[in-house]
Amino acid sequence: RRKEPLSANEYVKGIRNGNRAMLSRAITLIESTKPGHRALAQDIIGQCLPDSGNSIRIGITGVPGVGKSTFIETLGNRIIKKGHRLAVLAIDPSSTRSKGSILGDKTRMETLANSDRAYIRPSPTRGSLGGVARKTRETIYLCEAAGYNTIFIETVGVGQSETAVHSMVDFFLLLMLAGAGDELQGIKRGIMEMADAIAINKIDEAGGKAVRQAVREYKNALHLYPEAASGWKPNVVTCSAQTGEGIDDIWKLIREYIKLTRENGYFEIKRNRQARHWMYDTIETHLNEHFFQHPEVKQRQPTIEQKVLEGKLSSFRAAQQLLDAYFK
Amino acid sequence: RRKEPLSANEYVKGIRNGNRAMLSRAITLIESTKPGHRALAQDIIGQCLPDSGNSIRIGITGVPGVGKSTFIETLGNRIIKKGHRLAVLAIDPSSTRSKGSILGDKTRMETLANSDRAYIRPSPTRGSLGGVARKTRETIYLCEAAGYNTIFIETVGVGQSETAVHSMVDFFLLLMLAGAGDELQGIKRGIMEMADAIAINKIDEAGGKAVRQAVREYKNALHLYPEAASGWKPNVVTCSAQTGEGIDDIWKLIREYIKLTRENGYFEIKRNRQARHWMYDTIETHLNEHFFQHPEVKQRQPTIEQKVLEGKLSSFRAAQQLLDAYFK
Repeated sequence: RRKEPLSANEYVKGIRNGNRAMLSRAITLIESTKPGHRALAQDIIGQCLPDSGNSIRIGITGVPGVGKSTFIETLGNRIIKKGHRLAVLAIDPSSTRSKGSILGDKTRMETLANSDRAYIRPSPTRGSLGGVARKTRETIYLCEAAGYNTIFIETVGVGQSETAVHSMVDFFLLLMLAGAGDELQGIKRGIMEMADAIAINKIDEAGGKAVRQAVREYKNALHLYPEAASGWKPNVVTCSAQTGEGIDDIWKLIREYIKLTRENGYFEIKRNRQARHWMYDTIETHLNEHFFQHPEVKQRQPTIEQKVLEGKLSSFRAAQQLLDAYFK
Repeated sequence: RRKEPLSANEYVKGIRNGNRAMLSRAITLIESTKPGHRALAQDIIGQCLPDSGNSIRIGITGVPGVGKSTFIETLGNRIIKKGHRLAVLAIDPSSTRSKGSILGDKTRMETLANSDRAYIRPSPTRGSLGGVARKTRETIYLCEAAGYNTIFIETVGVGQSETAVHSMVDFFLLLMLAGAGDELQGIKRGIMEMADAIAINKIDEAGGKAVRQAVREYKNALHLYPEAASGWKPNVVTCSAQTGEGIDDIWKLIREYIKLTRENGYFEIKRNRQARHWMYDTIETHLNEHFFQHPEVKQRQPTIEQKVLEGKLSSFRAAQQLLDAYFK
């Protein structure tokens, strides 16, 4: 027997009751490319919005090999023991992350994955960075409505997804290694500038001298940046997600940041600026979707794109032909 | 007496005749935000398109201090002596580049700036990265129609503008320094991956040992990337723009790349893929402009944005209100 499709109300009721299966199915609707699914998803999101916003959103980034999964597993377990409910999301539209390695994440975060107080959702694998970022942001709202009061958003610190993550988190943590050949860690200056803290991980594996040197270097690098509008001074800390050393201090640091920015009003200002960003992003997405679903545009697009790829039509004229079909 | 506004035909005629003042004025129209100017600019671009495309477009990037201006001055002078006509454009929407430093560029590129065979145009300082990139691309077409057969597009290798440049050039050159504390050179992995060659500049200032080590390290880094679809193997070369050492070899390398990719067809494939990218970019830009010029959207936008910034309206509902005003 085929399952009856659920209504938006039923999804929202399930999400509010903390029904994880229902949450997962709603997120699948967000990730779907089918217009019917997307409309239903928008309805669910709209109803969840009043219950959203009451979490601390933390971005965690670092190159592959820096130990992000173990870090999230260790920090995550400590904070759910303190009574928090944690959702772990990821943004990574790159092809390097296959379905297999996403399952791998859940394996690496075994304790978290098996906890009632944690919810792990891999990144949507398909779509543009903009699309994936939007879906992750919408997923945050649903997780918050489901009662998760701490959200980790993981990203691989090598591409441009950090800017997208930065536009949806309250605190941005950059994981680094000591003495690992910095030029190959591939962290670009812009990402360092976004960081509210740099944590040097795997200090149990690196020599004390290399760790001290890395701390000094990254502190020097951070000092080059102008003072942040938050009034917060980004710091460099050390930890080992493997042994647990330093992990509590990082959580303390994050709480200090939240306290400071809540008191000086920056927390709210930042969230509202992010909302403005997403308002324009939502408009742009909607305009594009409306355009490419227009029947005549849809019909002519493949031929016109092909002509451009064969060098038979300039990008301008191609765009003009599709725009004419839409606006006529 | 006020100057009569020129027609698109007059602009195009002037550009085709190599009238630099006319070219500059047409580029100013491209950079203008006034709808009337933009419409005229589009008309000019449309008429210049058939004469465009016949140049080699070279992207040149590197962090501040790497010596980009001197490099462009030295290489530029050599190729104009070989009979080429060179246009130097820049993409840098960041606030770090004030009007003053743009004038500074022209001063640093003094010989080029005074040559009849070279045309230097600073980056538009205002607007989003997307907007600036689009304007630069449109400027390329006009420069090509004006007979410039070599285009340099300069960008500061610390932000996201490299991706934009990469989408409009045939060859992408990354300038680096030897022994300058690589972690602070801030070149992200993604930029290195885009490079068709890495040139280590200022070798007259660095020790031979540091230069050899840098060459080795960057070669190792390049070897980590999968083979390029172009069939080209990116290489690491050394030069001193100050003394001129190695500059001719870089030009030789670029010519080899062009020869190889023209023969194996990749040159054309890449240009056509870039055209597809710009086709979709043009559509997106047009849809956005059309939206925000809609009278009711224009009227309601400031109030709605303010409400979002004050936390009184969610980004979703704000977007919906403006979309309703547009589509109703």
